[in-house]
Amino acid sequence: MRADARRNREAIVSAALELLASDPEASIGAIASRAGVGRVTVYGHFCTRAELIDAVFESALAASERTLSELGCAVDPRTALAELIAATWRIVGRTRGLLLAARDHLPAERVRELHRLPLERVRSLLHRGRSEGVFRTDLSEDWLIAVYYNVVHGAVEEVAAGRLEERDAADAITRVVDSAFAPA
Amino acid sequence: MRADARRNREAIVSAALELLASDPEASIGAIASRAGVGRVTVYGHFCTRAELIDAVFESALAASERTLSELGCAVDPRTALAELIAATWRIVGRTRGLLLAARDHLPAERVRELHRLPLERVRSLLHRGRSEGVFRTDLSEDWLIAVYYNVVHGAVEEVAAGRLEERDAADAITRVVDSAFAPA
Repeated sequence: MRADARRNREAIVSAALELLASDPEASIGAIASRAGVGRVTVYGHFCTRAELIDAVFESALAASERTLSELGCAVDPRTALAELIAATWRIVGRTRGLLLAARDHLPAERVRELHRLPLERVRSLLHRGRSEGVFRTDLSEDWLIAVYYNVVHGAVEEVAAGRLEERDAADAITRVVDSAFAPA
Repeated sequence: MRADARRNREAIVSAALELLASDPEASIGAIASRAGVGRVTVYGHFCTRAELIDAVFESALAASERTLSELGCAVDPRTALAELIAATWRIVGRTRGLLLAARDHLPAERVRELHRLPLERVRSLLHRGRSEGVFRTDLSEDWLIAVYYNVVHGAVEEVAAGRLEERDAADAITRVVDSAFAPA
């Protein structure tokens, strides 16, 4: 890709991230205009809205991964999990619209695949907590990770629907995951 | 609607339910042929795949509501919840593809709205359990219902992805919801 094409692509992804974060329905026209390019240029890089959302989501998750990797890791797995949820929600709450756009335009398995790295982070914490007897072992790791993932996504939808206050979300997620992960 | 048009519509919805239950990608052609009508007749009743899925989903949920209303209501709210989950999963497990088709073709809020009656059933049980001190009261009813809904939907996706055995799903859901609803 030529340097100017690469710059345009980056400008489009970054403009789309900014707009979709608060409005999952942001139009291609609005995104093009925020990026300082024409709609035709956007479609030159991304044939469909889904392709653009996929690229934006991938880029947002890479940025989020850099933030989460800077978290210290508390010795107590339950504390570490609460800290991970709080940090995750600080990111998710800010880019809520993007997650809703991804859910509406990408296959569910693709959305989950894009979350591979943050979910690996939960898996390794879960693994440590299980070996220390702090988290339950009567259910599979895969299922507990699915519970975590679905509870966080549920919170995004509840906030969007006005049934949960954004400021209460991290605490609401933590209390549920903490109970769901506790030894039976 | 004329009687033959009504019969056709019912045949289409019932054929679609049968096929989508196991294959969320079942084609309109296959549905028409199972219903004994032409594709044009299907499109005469349902302009889009989403409209057809909406109608099928509504009809499946009405049938499911009739089944769930026949459940006795155990005196202990935790037992009643476990029985409700088991009965729900017997229905959901059988029509899993339909839920996945709905998730892919209908807005998330519409899918949730179509679940209004089964969710009211959970709400009333939750309400009773909270007043009896069996379920937690440190989180809102809305949020606990969202947790229930998202955990059940998560199980559908995990089974579809091959990460959870269908025969283990009701137990896996019950254990998580039971812990998540327990007083903190």
